[in-house]
Amino acid sequence: MEQLPPLLDAPLKTAPEVEGRVAGFAGAAAAAGLRKDGRVDLALIAADKPVPVAGVFTTNKLPAAPVQVCRKHVASGYARAILANSGGANAATGGPGIEACLRTCRAVAAELGCDPHQILPCSTGVIGQLLDAGKVEAVAPALAAGLAAGGVKAAAGAIMTTDAFRKMARAEALVHGKKVAVLGLAKGAGMIRPDMATMLAFVLTDAAASPEALRSIIGAIAEQSFNRASVDGDTSTNDTLLMLASGKAGNPEMSPGDPELASLQAAATRVCQELAAMLVADGEGAGHLIRVRVTGASGVEQARSTCYAVAHSPLCKTAFAGRDPNWGRLFSTAGAEAGRRGWPFAPERFNLWIGESHIARDGLFTGGAAEERAAAVMKRNRYEIRLDLGLGEGEFWVLTSDLDHEYIKINADYRS
Amino acid sequence: MEQLPPLLDAPLKTAPEVEGRVAGFAGAAAAAGLRKDGRVDLALIAADKPVPVAGVFTTNKLPAAPVQVCRKHVASGYARAILANSGGANAATGGPGIEACLRTCRAVAAELGCDPHQILPCSTGVIGQLLDAGKVEAVAPALAAGLAAGGVKAAAGAIMTTDAFRKMARAEALVHGKKVAVLGLAKGAGMIRPDMATMLAFVLTDAAASPEALRSIIGAIAEQSFNRASVDGDTSTNDTLLMLASGKAGNPEMSPGDPELASLQAAATRVCQELAAMLVADGEGAGHLIRVRVTGASGVEQARSTCYAVAHSPLCKTAFAGRDPNWGRLFSTAGAEAGRRGWPFAPERFNLWIGESHIARDGLFTGGAAEERAAAVMKRNRYEIRLDLGLGEGEFWVLTSDLDHEYIKINADYRS
Repeated sequence: MEQLPPLLDAPLKTAPEVEGRVAGFAGAAAAAGLRKDGRVDLALIAADKPVPVAGVFTTNKLPAAPVQVCRKHVASGYARAILANSGGANAATGGPGIEACLRTCRAVAAELGCDPHQILPCSTGVIGQLLDAGKVEAVAPALAAGLAAGGVKAAAGAIMTTDAFRKMARAEALVHGKKVAVLGLAKGAGMIRPDMATMLAFVLTDAAASPEALRSIIGAIAEQSFNRASVDGDTSTNDTLLMLASGKAGNPEMSPGDPELASLQAAATRVCQELAAMLVADGEGAGHLIRVRVTGASGVEQARSTCYAVAHSPLCKTAFAGRDPNWGRLFSTAGAEAGRRGWPFAPERFNLWIGESHIARDGLFTGGAAEERAAAVMKRNRYEIRLDLGLGEGEFWVLTSDLDHEYIKINADYRS
Repeated sequence: MEQLPPLLDAPLKTAPEVEGRVAGFAGAAAAAGLRKDGRVDLALIAADKPVPVAGVFTTNKLPAAPVQVCRKHVASGYARAILANSGGANAATGGPGIEACLRTCRAVAAELGCDPHQILPCSTGVIGQLLDAGKVEAVAPALAAGLAAGGVKAAAGAIMTTDAFRKMARAEALVHGKKVAVLGLAKGAGMIRPDMATMLAFVLTDAAASPEALRSIIGAIAEQSFNRASVDGDTSTNDTLLMLASGKAGNPEMSPGDPELASLQAAATRVCQELAAMLVADGEGAGHLIRVRVTGASGVEQARSTCYAVAHSPLCKTAFAGRDPNWGRLFSTAGAEAGRRGWPFAPERFNLWIGESHIARDGLFTGGAAEERAAAVMKRNRYEIRLDLGLGEGEFWVLTSDLDHEYIKINADYRS
């Protein structure tokens, strides 16, 4: 049985107020002029000293220059600061892109008095646009001078692009008797502003954990959170998740295999699941957040691919938007994916729930009452759709959103 | 080198006038009341006698009742008539769906004086809606009585659902010294009316060819035409391609391996390619028909999957719609697909053409002049985008459309 985060029927576009201070970290933001609109576009999050770090990066084989540089810098296991900009992805920019990225690392390192390899660069914006390193160099002194414990929140604001709200989440855990804090901040993916679909997420904790310990948990954290959030199915050139541990909480430094590490992992997973849900909820035009859950698949791979088939299907997403309990589309999508991938499929064993309404049983519609109950579920802001394939034990879930309202106007009332 | 059909810059939503008569076939249409709007919704295309037939059906593992029945009836190699309805897919309807479908076959067979197994049923419409066999039975006598050589065109009209125009195409070929005609008719897939995304296509020829001969060519015909047309990536429960050969042209009946069969195949492929282009051009809101071509891939599979990745990417499709030569999105999509599937990828060997404009060379932007030329290409109704991966000899192409205009308003001007 997979871990299922709670699915509360909360409004989509609002985030709770979150305490942005984490011991050992400071933040600052500046308007470097990378964005044409003059908005704040550069964020710096710095630790007091080099601290353990681990990262997960895009699988796109056209990784942006900052991803290439950041990956190398993370490999050392220690970092001093994250330097993130909006206003340009610095992807598909070749050698000059790498050089521009390195220049910004050097500029900030000079201000912080550290090695440029201890700076972790991240960018988001239009692909193919070379980063203007000079603009970053120009504001680096003011940016570093502005670092403050309360500035992490400002940093979260500086990486927003089309985001409708600032995405932060926080959790606490007890490790070796010490209370530790985990703060996450992210920028997301407006569904129909696809140039900006980059996902950047930073997890800061005051727990003490070795780089190896962070490395041992960050993959599973990403797998249970951001890897379950799918808006349009794309993998950007710049996707980056970083986790830094300042050690200020005073617990004995955890190594891989430390049983207490599970508490930190659980808290970080919860934080990242909240951020992932915010990313999906903030999809442009998204009116609903839907957890697509597949159970009874022949294996996890069939469960996973069927989840994504539903989450990426314009057919299903327009039905979600139209609050139309169109069980046939969901059923057909599962069958189409089975045909495409060569999975087994048994229509007479297929069961479907929309929320708590069991709308298809053993391959057949259960009737108008179930349809009415399902339609009521689909008016909620957040709900679950479960497809049980009746084949085995494989299960998986993903979060997705519906398609935008303009799209809906044309589609949603089609069946009526 | 793959066969590339011509890509003329013709308007999208118009079809040329096509002669609908083919020796040995008659057609009729009726309003059976299956559609709520009272429009003509039932088509009958009948041969004078049982004639050789071959078919290709959806790979969806939730095949509609008519697909299950039709597949069996086609297996005998001979058929008398195609009975096709809009107004309901009769999919996910279990045993009652099969029984309803068989009842309609019996009703029409009784009128034609043939075996019910010689009737080929096809349906299109909402999934989960049981076919009302009684309505078909009620109009069967009038439908059969209305059969006329000139009625094939009316039949093509009766299977239209959201189609903006009737889709017919025609070609001729010389086989064993005899001129033969190939007529194709199809109904398509309005992109954003996804319930109706079923593809039905019927190819009628007066050539003489054995069932085995038709079977030996129909897969390749579909592969070079309908399998290259992708609007929203879905495979419906009802997709069906049928090819019937009346033999009235008087050529000696062709068997598999007959060298003259290639002429029939070429003509039928041309007809189906025209129909496939019409299906894509008729996508709701489609403003452009784009041939996505991938060359230099590590193999055909990488070429194919990269084509589909571009054709199904909301990122790329909004750029097409906005006439925005956003080369970075195309480049990134190829890289993302390589990462997802584990294909090789070398950014520095990537080349991209939009029409004749070479906009990215060896992984880098070629500059503003190429961008302007590309923007001009993207104003055409139909054009080609070619991604060369610089890895090997694999190539593939698909036809796709852009995303709808409402979507565009929000997206297209994003970069400016």
